[in-house]
Amino acid sequence: MKNEDVMNIAKKRGFLWSSFEIYSGVAGFFDYGPLGAILKNKIMNKWREFYLVGEGYYEIESPTIMPQEALKASGHVDHFNDPMTECKECLEVFRADHIIKEAIESEVEGLENQELTNILSNQQIRCPRCGGHLTHVWSYNLMFQTLIGAKGKKTGYMRPETAQGIFITFKRLLRFYRGKLPFGVVQLGKAYRNEISPRQGVIRLREFTQAEAEIFVDPGEKSHPRFKEIENHVLTLYPADIQEKEEKPLRLTAQEAVKGGVVSSEILTYQLCLADKFMGELGIPRDVIRFRQHLKTEMAHYAIDCWDVEIHTDRYGWIEVIGIADRADFDLKSHSEYSKEDLRVFLEYDQPTIVEKLVLKPDMKKFGPLFKGDAPRIMNVLKKTDPETIRNAFEKENSYNIEIEGENYQLTPDLLSFEEAEETVRGEKIYPHVIEPSYGIDRITYSVLLHCFQQDDDRNILHLPTDIAPVGVNVFPLVNKDDLILASEHIRDDLRAEGIIAELDTSGTIGRRYARSDEIGTPFAVTIDHQTLEDKTVTIRERDSQKQVRLPVVKIPSTINQLLMKKIEFSKLEARS
Amino acid sequence: MKNEDVMNIAKKRGFLWSSFEIYSGVAGFFDYGPLGAILKNKIMNKWREFYLVGEGYYEIESPTIMPQEALKASGHVDHFNDPMTECKECLEVFRADHIIKEAIESEVEGLENQELTNILSNQQIRCPRCGGHLTHVWSYNLMFQTLIGAKGKKTGYMRPETAQGIFITFKRLLRFYRGKLPFGVVQLGKAYRNEISPRQGVIRLREFTQAEAEIFVDPGEKSHPRFKEIENHVLTLYPADIQEKEEKPLRLTAQEAVKGGVVSSEILTYQLCLADKFMGELGIPRDVIRFRQHLKTEMAHYAIDCWDVEIHTDRYGWIEVIGIADRADFDLKSHSEYSKEDLRVFLEYDQPTIVEKLVLKPDMKKFGPLFKGDAPRIMNVLKKTDPETIRNAFEKENSYNIEIEGENYQLTPDLLSFEEAEETVRGEKIYPHVIEPSYGIDRITYSVLLHCFQQDDDRNILHLPTDIAPVGVNVFPLVNKDDLILASEHIRDDLRAEGIIAELDTSGTIGRRYARSDEIGTPFAVTIDHQTLEDKTVTIRERDSQKQVRLPVVKIPSTINQLLMKKIEFSKLEARS
Repeated sequence: MKNEDVMNIAKKRGFLWSSFEIYSGVAGFFDYGPLGAILKNKIMNKWREFYLVGEGYYEIESPTIMPQEALKASGHVDHFNDPMTECKECLEVFRADHIIKEAIESEVEGLENQELTNILSNQQIRCPRCGGHLTHVWSYNLMFQTLIGAKGKKTGYMRPETAQGIFITFKRLLRFYRGKLPFGVVQLGKAYRNEISPRQGVIRLREFTQAEAEIFVDPGEKSHPRFKEIENHVLTLYPADIQEKEEKPLRLTAQEAVKGGVVSSEILTYQLCLADKFMGELGIPRDVIRFRQHLKTEMAHYAIDCWDVEIHTDRYGWIEVIGIADRADFDLKSHSEYSKEDLRVFLEYDQPTIVEKLVLKPDMKKFGPLFKGDAPRIMNVLKKTDPETIRNAFEKENSYNIEIEGENYQLTPDLLSFEEAEETVRGEKIYPHVIEPSYGIDRITYSVLLHCFQQDDDRNILHLPTDIAPVGVNVFPLVNKDDLILASEHIRDDLRAEGIIAELDTSGTIGRRYARSDEIGTPFAVTIDHQTLEDKTVTIRERDSQKQVRLPVVKIPSTINQLLMKKIEFSKLEARS
Repeated sequence: MKNEDVMNIAKKRGFLWSSFEIYSGVAGFFDYGPLGAILKNKIMNKWREFYLVGEGYYEIESPTIMPQEALKASGHVDHFNDPMTECKECLEVFRADHIIKEAIESEVEGLENQELTNILSNQQIRCPRCGGHLTHVWSYNLMFQTLIGAKGKKTGYMRPETAQGIFITFKRLLRFYRGKLPFGVVQLGKAYRNEISPRQGVIRLREFTQAEAEIFVDPGEKSHPRFKEIENHVLTLYPADIQEKEEKPLRLTAQEAVKGGVVSSEILTYQLCLADKFMGELGIPRDVIRFRQHLKTEMAHYAIDCWDVEIHTDRYGWIEVIGIADRADFDLKSHSEYSKEDLRVFLEYDQPTIVEKLVLKPDMKKFGPLFKGDAPRIMNVLKKTDPETIRNAFEKENSYNIEIEGENYQLTPDLLSFEEAEETVRGEKIYPHVIEPSYGIDRITYSVLLHCFQQDDDRNILHLPTDIAPVGVNVFPLVNKDDLILASEHIRDDLRAEGIIAELDTSGTIGRRYARSDEIGTPFAVTIDHQTLEDKTVTIRERDSQKQVRLPVVKIPSTINQLLMKKIEFSKLEARS
C-alpha cells in the first residue's frame, strides 16, 4: 500500500499521530497511539529476544541527558553539525547541502563550509522559497542543549545516540564480564536530533528510539564462533564499488561475502545476517531489503567497514533503518583520552611469550659514594629509562647525562653494566574494536506498517506476523443477544487471563467487525453463536486465509496462545477438526 | 539489609551505577547496569500485565520534549517551582523550605516566597554551610529547558511527567474508545526534574521513569464494576486526620474504607488495592507499605482525594513510590481552555429527558416590509439570543433594541410572539474526571532491592520473586572437565532456546558459584555432574530453600520455565521425585 494510505489508516485506527495537534503541532514529533505503542513494544521485545536471549548480550539503561564533557569526547559537540544557510530576504533557514544537491544534482557530502559557500556563490544558487540571496554557510549543532542544576552553569545535551552510555560505563561492564573479550552490551531508548525543519513524517524525527548493540572484540580476532549457522544465508549486498559502477546489487551467501572480501569480517557479516533475519521475522519482504555499503565519502575516517540496511518505500525511496559498522577502537580510545581513564583490556596470550630484554645493572659500590644523597633519585630516573638509550649514548659519547630539577648528573660506563635477561610476557593491554549494529525502531515500525498493509478486494488487511500484532484476538458474538454477549465476555476474560490482549466488539454487522479486525492486523477472531450455547464450541477465523475452524471453548486460550507464538499453524487445526 | 550494604552489592554486581563516573559524575543520574536493567524491565512488564492485560487499558507513547504552550496549560511553566535562596558569602544555592524545616523543625509547605523570606529573616536563619546571610527567596522552575529547531525561537521542556501526553491526545483517545466512558490510558517512560542539588542517590533523580495511568470517568459514577473482587482486601491506611492526631495507621478492608468515607470513592480504593497487590507481587513485605493520605496543605486545590503509597527505608524513612489521586476535571478543562479545543465528552442519559423550552416566532409578514434588506442580519442576531431576555425586555419596556455595526433596530411585541415547546435532550457534554495512579519505577526498583536482600549465615541472598529475577537460572558443571562443560553448554543453550536468561559459570568452587548466584537473586541453579553423563539427569537447586531435586535433562527447560512463571512450585517437584 502507499505511504499516504498507510498513514491515513495509521492515524484513524490509533497507530501514529502527529504530536501536539491541539497546540498546532510541532514538526518532527510523533505519538504512538494505543495500537502503535503495542506494535512498537512488541518489535522491541523481539529485538531483545534476538540480542539478549539469542546472542547473550546484556542490556543497560543510561541517562538521556549527558554532560558536555562526555559528548566532547565522543566528537558530537564539535562534529554533530549540519551546514546551514539563511535567505537574506525572507530569513528562512536551509540546509546548504540539501539546497545545493537539489540545484545542481551533485553529491556534496563531506565538503567544508567554505567550499559549500563557494558553490552557492559560483553556481548562483538562490533561496528556493523567494529567490533571495543566501548567506555564507555555518555549522549548526544538532543536539538539544540544556542546563543541569540550579546555578545553570553545567551544560548538558539530550543524547544523540544510545551508544555513548555504553562506552562511558565500559570499565564497569568489562568487570561485569570478568575482563574477557568478546562481549556485547545493548541499549534501547530515546535519542535526539534537533533537525532544522523536518518534513518527512516519521522518517525524520527530532526524538526517536534506537536499539544499539556494542560488541567489544579482540582486534585480531574477527571470526565468529557461530558463523557456520549462517554461512549459507543469502544477502542482497550493494558494495561501494558496485554503486560507483551503477550496477545492480549482488545476491551472495554470507560465506561468499566474507571469502570475496565484500564484507570486511565474519563478525560483521554475522551481524548483517542477524539484521536480515530480524527484518524477515517482522514480515518485511526480502525484495524491499538491501544492504548498502557506505561510500568512501560517507564513511567515518576511523571506521573499517560500514553497511546500511535499507528498506524501499514508495514515498521516500530507499531509507536507512539499521546501520552496522566496524568502528575499530575510535570510541574507547577517545573516551580514554578525554577522561584520563584507562579503558584498555588486558589480553592474555594463548601462550606466554618469552622476551629478550636488556637490563641495567648499576654498580652500587661506586654509585653511592659518588652521588651520595642524590643516588636514589638518579636510580629512580634510570628505572624509567630504556637501557637501550643509555647503551647507545655510551657507545657514541661514552657518557649519558641526566637532568633532575636543574641539576646535571653525568653517568659513565664504569658505573653501569648491561645484561641480557629473559622476561615472560603473559599478554598486553589493547583497545578492543567495536562492532555496532544500530537499529532505528521508529523507521522499522513504519516499514512494518508500510509493507504489511495490503488491499485485497477493497479490504485493508494488515498482515502482521502473529507475534507482533497489537491485539491478539477479537471476540464477536454473532448477534447482539444478552446470552451470547455474556458468553463472549467470559471467553474474552479467559483469554486475558492467559496474558493475551483480547477485545470484544459488538458494534455493527459481523462482516464490518471482521473488516475492522483485519485492518488493525488482529490475526484471529473468535465468533460465538447459538451453537456455542448448546455444545460449547466456537469458531476461530484466521485473518490471512479467512478460513474458520470450530473448536471447544475450553481449548481457546491455549490454542490462541500457541497460534500467536507460532507454536502451531492454523492449517494444522483445520486438518485436525 | 541496610541501604549502604544494598547499594554496595548493587554497584559491585551490576545493578546500579552512578552515571558518568569517568567524567567525575553528575548528581541525580544513575545507570542501570546489566542486572539492574533486566530487573527494571521485568518490573515494568509486570506493571503492563496489571494495567494493560488485567485492566484492559491501552498504552501510548508521546514525546519527552514538549512545547511551552502545552506545559503552560498544565500549570508547569508557572507552578512547577522550588523556593530558592542563595548565600551572599559562599554563593551556594539552597532550597529555602528545606533550610527552614531543618532550622526550626516546622512544616512550611504551601507558603509564598515572601512568607519564606520573612521566616528566614525573622528567625535569623543563616547559610548551613558557611553561616553567611541568605538572599530573598525566589522561584526556580524545575523543568529542563531547551530550544526546538534551527532558529532557536521555540522554547521546549523535557516533560515533568508522562501524564500530559495522555491529556493532550485525549480527543484522539476518546475516538479510539468510540466516545464511551470510562476508559483508561497508560504511559511508561522518562520524566525529568532539574533538581537543585540532589543528594539522595536513586531516591531523587533528575531523570526518572514513571508508569502512569489516566482513567477517565463520568464524574457522577465513581463506583467500580469489579469492586467485589477486592472488597475484602486489607490496606494499611493513614488518613489525614489520623496523621494530624498523631495516631497509628488503620488496617481496613476496601469495603470499610469506602463505607467509612476514609477513601473518597470505590474507584480510588480499587486503585489502592491494585497498587498494594502489585507491590506484594514484587516481593515487598506488607509491613513496610502504607497508604498515606495527603494533608490539606499538601493536596492540589482541584484534587478530590490523594494518597501516597509509601515504603519504609532505613536511610530515608518513609518514601513515596506511588501517588494515587482523583484529580477531578482539572487537566482536561485546563487544556481545553488553553488550546481552544473542546475536550468534553458527550454523556448519553440512560433515558432522554424532555425539556420545556421557550421558542421565538417572528411575524415575517411584518418583519420583511419593516426592515427590508436588514431583516436577515437581525434574524441572525435573534437566533443567538435567549428568548427569555427578549420577553423580559417586552414586559418591562415594551421593546427590545438590537445594535448591529452601529445601526440601531427597535423590536416591538407585535413583531414577535413566544411559544412553549418541548425538546428531547439525549445527554450532555461534560469534562470527565481523572483517576491517576502514578508509579515511580526507579524508587520501586530500589525498594525491591532493599527489601528483597537478606543476609543469612553470611550469605547475601536476593530473594526476588522468580518472575522478576534478572537471570533465570545458572548452569554449573560440578568440576571443570571438558565433557561436563560441553554438557553444561548444551543445557544452557536449550534453556536460552526456551527464552530463559541462562548463564554458565565455571569459575571457582561450586560453593562460591552458588553464593554468587544467590547474591544476584538467580532463583535456580542446575548442576551437571558425572552422573549426568551416565543417566542424563541433573540437579536443580532452589535459591530460597537451598534444596535440590534430580530431574532428567530433557525436562529442564520446560520445568525451569514453569517454575519461573510460578506455574508449579519447587516443593511439588521434590514430592514427585
